[in-house]
Amino acid sequence: MTGLEAVKYNDDGLVPAIAQDKATGTVLMLAWMNEATLRETLETGRMVYWSRSRHERWAKGDTSGDIQKVVEARYDCDGDTLLFVVEQAGGGACHTGEFSCFFRAFGDDPAQ
Amino acid sequence: MTGLEAVKYNDDGLVPAIAQDKATGTVLMLAWMNEATLRETLETGRMVYWSRSRHERWAKGDTSGDIQKVVEARYDCDGDTLLFVVEQAGGGACHTGEFSCFFRAFGDDPAQ
Repeated sequence: MTGLEAVKYNDDGLVPAIAQDKATGTVLMLAWMNEATLRETLETGRMVYWSRSRHERWAKGDTSGDIQKVVEARYDCDGDTLLFVVEQAGGGACHTGEFSCFFRAFGDDPAQ
Repeated sequence: MTGLEAVKYNDDGLVPAIAQDKATGTVLMLAWMNEATLRETLETGRMVYWSRSRHERWAKGDTSGDIQKVVEARYDCDGDTLLFVVEQAGGGACHTGEFSCFFRAFGDDPAQ
């Protein structure tokens, strides 16, 4: 697919992938892909990441049901970051139950 | 500032920072910050990154005039990615002149 040749992976063979919710524009999460999971994501239309902690392929939603359907697949001017506009299924993207992983702001009272 | 203690830097002392345009919701770019430029960003309300290629502090807009004013400063559930909602000045975030660095999609005709 056009564009794959422009992607630059880091020393671990990974590239950061941002997922943004189509309906709300909310930035949901950032995770990582290797070339295989990027290709699988583009071919299947479903977000598949690479888990840096578990060192394994991670098809988003396999456990939680919160799958992400790809609407747009973009890459940046340097080819070293990916942006996917997605339809987020289920309650949200975050393992905490929040819709977005970015639910905390600097300066928030930690008791809140 | 609350939240700084939650930020996890990689082996190079860096954390990825996503900039999203306040007015349009467009994801503008991803760049990197070290602890010093993150603190400067939070204290000054203006996006300051760390250039991995030049190995130096990079106050966005110093050369181009396309500064980014911080509206919201967030961090994710793992503390290893930052999200800033910004007011993008000038023509846009990208050095190519595009508003967003993510102006190319996989599958686009490269002649376009």
